[in-house]
Amino acid sequence: MNLTNISQNKVAGGWHKQVTHESTALNCTMRFALFLPPNASKESPVPVMYWLSGLTCTDENFMQKAGAFNTAAKLGIAIVAPDTSPRGDEVADDDAYDLGKGAGFYLNATQEPWSKHYRMYDYIVKELPLLIEANFPVSNINAISGHSMGGHGALTIGLSNPNSFTSISAFSPICNPTHCPWGQKAFGAYLGQDQESWKAYDATELLKQNPSPLPILVDQGDADNFLHEQLKPESLVNAAKTHNSNLELRIQEGYDHSYYFISSFIEDHLVFHAKHMFK
Amino acid sequence: MNLTNISQNKVAGGWHKQVTHESTALNCTMRFALFLPPNASKESPVPVMYWLSGLTCTDENFMQKAGAFNTAAKLGIAIVAPDTSPRGDEVADDDAYDLGKGAGFYLNATQEPWSKHYRMYDYIVKELPLLIEANFPVSNINAISGHSMGGHGALTIGLSNPNSFTSISAFSPICNPTHCPWGQKAFGAYLGQDQESWKAYDATELLKQNPSPLPILVDQGDADNFLHEQLKPESLVNAAKTHNSNLELRIQEGYDHSYYFISSFIEDHLVFHAKHMFK
Repeated sequence: MNLTNISQNKVAGGWHKQVTHESTALNCTMRFALFLPPNASKESPVPVMYWLSGLTCTDENFMQKAGAFNTAAKLGIAIVAPDTSPRGDEVADDDAYDLGKGAGFYLNATQEPWSKHYRMYDYIVKELPLLIEANFPVSNINAISGHSMGGHGALTIGLSNPNSFTSISAFSPICNPTHCPWGQKAFGAYLGQDQESWKAYDATELLKQNPSPLPILVDQGDADNFLHEQLKPESLVNAAKTHNSNLELRIQEGYDHSYYFISSFIEDHLVFHAKHMFK
Repeated sequence: MNLTNISQNKVAGGWHKQVTHESTALNCTMRFALFLPPNASKESPVPVMYWLSGLTCTDENFMQKAGAFNTAAKLGIAIVAPDTSPRGDEVADDDAYDLGKGAGFYLNATQEPWSKHYRMYDYIVKELPLLIEANFPVSNINAISGHSMGGHGALTIGLSNPNSFTSISAFSPICNPTHCPWGQKAFGAYLGQDQESWKAYDATELLKQNPSPLPILVDQGDADNFLHEQLKPESLVNAAKTHNSNLELRIQEGYDHSYYFISSFIEDHLVFHAKHMFK
């Protein structure tokens, strides 16, 4: 697989890189960002936290705004931040911010005009980790985290692929997309009107069906404008009780949906994942 | 003075705010950003680090990208990030990125068409601190820091107003603007062709004339594209030797001119200022 390094900046003793490649899962050129901590080498490969971003984001939002580098450098954790959808002129899109480009929802679309490119689930689960492991000094120990739509992605991908990750965390995730406007709109378009097919991409439904094999940490601000209509963490917590899943939800007083919130607690998430990655 | 709070986000237990006001120094509406640490209160006012940003920046760049909040919160330091020039349709401008809006150079312009609005020196030295002290729970203990053009601003304003600050720091500052293209272009436009008048805004010239009454910390990446043509830290170091000024220049291997560099070392700068603020 052919990688093109398009930017490189030293940070926290390690390196931030932006890389493009031809994605076979998505049938288009994709860009991702990577942080390598200073101790990463072929002789001592480091674990990776995959970070899935929210609606309208690219590979850049987390890397520029989360303030995660110094902690990740100290812990010896790489971070990979993929884009949030397929990209390019030939990729189907919608005028709304919550469908099409920037809104891939980390699923495999089955409906036209989306199914040719919108296969973010396969990209994150299958293609990207192989590409990262083949090209950078990382181990096969991975954790997964994300924000909002990406929190939904981290929860559903982590729960459905427990052998691929040590731990799951999320900020302000869309916890029950089959029961909120963002999810219903996107799933209807990408997956069609058979709502049974939606459940595989709903973290609350997954936790109702089975216990989580992985520990989960969720942070949610109580001043988040999207909390009650779109995010519904109480549904996730209730579902987690069905099979006694190991889920900690922390309601953070006064915090909103922004990266100011993420930057306040990303250190906790990295330490949480490190505990499970290095045990 | 009438302040309008236009955004507010909880971060690191404290608050990030964006505020607009009518500036009398600049004759226009200005916006600044403020971080208040969690311990700031009328009963225990906190010191302030003023952060001056570089060419093309606004009040947002540092606040979104520097990753400074958690450290500033722990130390109990507020941060104020002003804009980099006057703003508004009635303000003179130039098509180039390094003159006019976004490029105020922290001086008082004497030439047309700039002199009506381009008085960033007076704004930073006189107007803004009074406004901050009158409206927020801060003390009158201040430090000053900045990046690139803002590093030039921090050095020159700090050196010329030693009673207003405890300490000066800078990332990748324009150290000798009277001898580099950015400075010569801007000073020629704003101050005219009498180069004697430029020297008051040149940190190297100021350190040749007098010892620094304040401790100075400068970080400079050796992979910075602007290092040799525009920044010239060796001129500053040589000038500091004239009167044995207390200046530490740290050359950081592999780092460039970006906020990735700033985020790597901002903790050191905050700790440096805290040492002098709280002694």
